[in-house]
Amino acid sequence: MLVDQSVRDLLAAFSSKDPTPGGGSASALASAVGASLLMMVAGLPKTRTGSDDDRAALTSAGGALADLRKRLTGAIDADAAAYDQVVAAYTLPKASAGEQAARQAAIQRALRGAIDVPLGVVRLSAAAIDQAITVATYGHRAAASDVGVAVALLRAGARGAQLNVEINIGSLADPSYADAIVEETIRVSEGAAHAADEADALLRDA
Amino acid sequence: MLVDQSVRDLLAAFSSKDPTPGGGSASALASAVGASLLMMVAGLPKTRTGSDDDRAALTSAGGALADLRKRLTGAIDADAAAYDQVVAAYTLPKASAGEQAARQAAIQRALRGAIDVPLGVVRLSAAAIDQAITVATYGHRAAASDVGVAVALLRAGARGAQLNVEINIGSLADPSYADAIVEETIRVSEGAAHAADEADALLRDA
Repeated sequence: MLVDQSVRDLLAAFSSKDPTPGGGSASALASAVGASLLMMVAGLPKTRTGSDDDRAALTSAGGALADLRKRLTGAIDADAAAYDQVVAAYTLPKASAGEQAARQAAIQRALRGAIDVPLGVVRLSAAAIDQAITVATYGHRAAASDVGVAVALLRAGARGAQLNVEINIGSLADPSYADAIVEETIRVSEGAAHAADEADALLRDA
Repeated sequence: MLVDQSVRDLLAAFSSKDPTPGGGSASALASAVGASLLMMVAGLPKTRTGSDDDRAALTSAGGALADLRKRLTGAIDADAAAYDQVVAAYTLPKASAGEQAARQAAIQRALRGAIDVPLGVVRLSAAAIDQAITVATYGHRAAASDVGVAVALLRAGARGAQLNVEINIGSLADPSYADAIVEETIRVSEGAAHAADEADALLRDA
């Protein structure tokens, strides 16, 4: 699995000419790192004011972020596996009309998988940015730069995953399915961008 | 070294309460992944038009990006090492006036190191974004989403590194040195943001 490779080897894999891992896995990785930094700040012994309310809010955020980080980490490999399916479907035989129909059906199935994974990363990144607002509000002031880095990485992960949804949408045969996916991706991405702006504003005022 | 650890273990290290690795190493990692994706697109057999000019421009960009990726990868560990020095300096004895002076000098030296590394990451990320303009211009259209993800990651890496410069600047004793660093960081960051906007515009029009 990609996540069991060394960081150095994963960087080499991103720069190789092989079709995977590509931008989809890179986006999931960026958001997994962002969620990890937020977990760190949520788990620090010191909180904003030292109150029980701070600790309760950060404990809840830390639990949610651990789940999001786990799913984002899974998406690093899932994105590569889904795109490998698309590449494999395009290599299917297309000599007869029957083969052509089977190949087209396989391509469409594989494309839906290659859209589902980055759409999930957009959703998971948006959920992690929501938690960043809690961490920015109740977390220790000395860790504000770590929260700011996390928000920047989650923005990049959400944006990158959105680009991966959009590039695969173009090859979908079903326009109503494509429209629904585009609508959801834009809606979730815009919500995430607003939440990221809110978290950044909290950090500036801290 | 951090880059020899598995991706899974590095994520666990980012979420642990230990002082390092933190946002500085995470920023360097984001930019190293961005540079890697650009290297991949620059090395693809297909180019925008298939011309010799495309290939020459992409070969040159690929060489520059390989050097930038190497230095960004080094910064993942260098940032953690530099911040460990700051933490160590703060633990020095401060019973006598002599000890206090030695401790302050050690803290100031360590802070300059903890500023130099992320300032370098801001510069390296900006240089990689400049190469992204070349890759967006001459690279294969089918890889446009990978270039877009790379630009998003390099923006996040530059922004995150800038936050790490700024948080350490606050503790510097020499105001003229601090002012010079702040001025350069803002200037390079603004240039990088404009170049990233230019690369994104090229990708939208592709």
